[in-house]
Amino acid sequence: MKIGIIGLGLIGGSLGLSLRELGHLVFGVSRQEETCEVARDKGIVDEAGVHLSLLAAADIIFICTPINAIAPTISALIPHLQPQTIITDVGSVKTPVVEACSSLWHNFVGGHPMAGTEHSGIFSAQLQLFTNAPYVLTPTDTTPIESVKILQELVTSLGAVVHICSPADHDQAVALISHLPVMISASLVATCTEGAAEKILNLAQNFASSGFRDTSRVGGGNPELGVMMAKYNGKLLARSLQQYRQNLDQIIALIEQEDWQGLEDILTMTQQERAKFL
Amino acid sequence: MKIGIIGLGLIGGSLGLSLRELGHLVFGVSRQEETCEVARDKGIVDEAGVHLSLLAAADIIFICTPINAIAPTISALIPHLQPQTIITDVGSVKTPVVEACSSLWHNFVGGHPMAGTEHSGIFSAQLQLFTNAPYVLTPTDTTPIESVKILQELVTSLGAVVHICSPADHDQAVALISHLPVMISASLVATCTEGAAEKILNLAQNFASSGFRDTSRVGGGNPELGVMMAKYNGKLLARSLQQYRQNLDQIIALIEQEDWQGLEDILTMTQQERAKFL
Repeated sequence: MKIGIIGLGLIGGSLGLSLRELGHLVFGVSRQEETCEVARDKGIVDEAGVHLSLLAAADIIFICTPINAIAPTISALIPHLQPQTIITDVGSVKTPVVEACSSLWHNFVGGHPMAGTEHSGIFSAQLQLFTNAPYVLTPTDTTPIESVKILQELVTSLGAVVHICSPADHDQAVALISHLPVMISASLVATCTEGAAEKILNLAQNFASSGFRDTSRVGGGNPELGVMMAKYNGKLLARSLQQYRQNLDQIIALIEQEDWQGLEDILTMTQQERAKFL
Repeated sequence: MKIGIIGLGLIGGSLGLSLRELGHLVFGVSRQEETCEVARDKGIVDEAGVHLSLLAAADIIFICTPINAIAPTISALIPHLQPQTIITDVGSVKTPVVEACSSLWHNFVGGHPMAGTEHSGIFSAQLQLFTNAPYVLTPTDTTPIESVKILQELVTSLGAVVHICSPADHDQAVALISHLPVMISASLVATCTEGAAEKILNLAQNFASSGFRDTSRVGGGNPELGVMMAKYNGKLLARSLQQYRQNLDQIIALIEQEDWQGLEDILTMTQQERAKFL
């Protein structure tokens, strides 16, 4: 197929690498000519350029820009498109994106590949990013079923595991398992940085090993991405954070009251329950 | 050297594998004969048994039991020891352990290898567990300097990076970067488990990928270990949790007030500061 990718960062770049590996013809668009050069050099695209007209012949277009740029990009793209072109996005929040984009382009299918690293940008692009990763598609009542099927097959061929649900259900689930972790992880880094005298901070920096590294990873990620999650999924994220705060307060109370049996009950539950998410 | 290891779980077992690989003679003691058999079968020890008398000839003894068993184990061990034997432990809290053990045995050096996985038990033992991991030694004014040096050399030969500090400074630093992550990570698992309707919980379990996996890892670990951290480092852990709660509340407030610039400032700070811990 002829595939267009707009936005050549971690996700867009990794899509390009993986789709070309499968034999598709990939056209990439970036605002920066430098990024286009890197994309060509690294084999991420067959052709790259700064003009959306490059995508006139594409069968499917992945919009891999930050969330706030998705709908404006579609508006700018429409004059260049054939009516049968499928547009999809990779934004981490779906309700506002799907609402805006479906009204702009009838053949739009919301998508969200749930893969990432703490790095961003085209130099972080990698071939196996989507292997075994969940990839959510969020059609609505008006989304053409045939387009969902085509996209589902393409994404499955990347090695990703496709899930289909409504935009609203997606946003509730990711508020819990994707957006909440970013905020609690960032709070950890802030506490370790600000919560100690210089001598202790130096030791903490030296002692930090896999536990701190893993728990702090998503809190040390791309700030722009974290803000976008909060901005577009703010209500559900705030609700998750309030629920989280109650669970945290319970643990603090158990420790302050030296209720070790109560703490063990919770930690035993979390050990058992975590396995169901993996 | 002749090395004794009491407690053949993840840490004790990994020490045995690694020390034998370096050519030392390793004697292991476990309460369970079954564990001794596994230790012999897996090449973790040269000899294993359930009686402390097996360690009479040891030059250095690593006590790898849960924290609450360290001092009682030393009391039981003393009748079998030669006066020059060095005893060390691997407990994750140092002040109460070092106080109790130094008064029982003059040649005691507190230790804490900061390596682990979410698994526990002898079947999780692995050869490279200590490679590049921090290994803290916490001598006091009365600890024999020569014993610290011997232990430092041995631990360095495992590939670990040795740090030396006081028990109190160690406990403050680990409250922040090791014990705090366990409690905030467990709170995440509890929130995702209890905070959603069945339909959303099912999606969350399917969508969970590397972000959730990493942030929840230490909260899904050995409950006994988590309780011991809290029990023995409770005051400093509670203080860290209160500081953490303030940072979390600040992020919640920014999201509820839609102060996206304020949120971006914090996430930019945590992105920069996290790098200093790695």
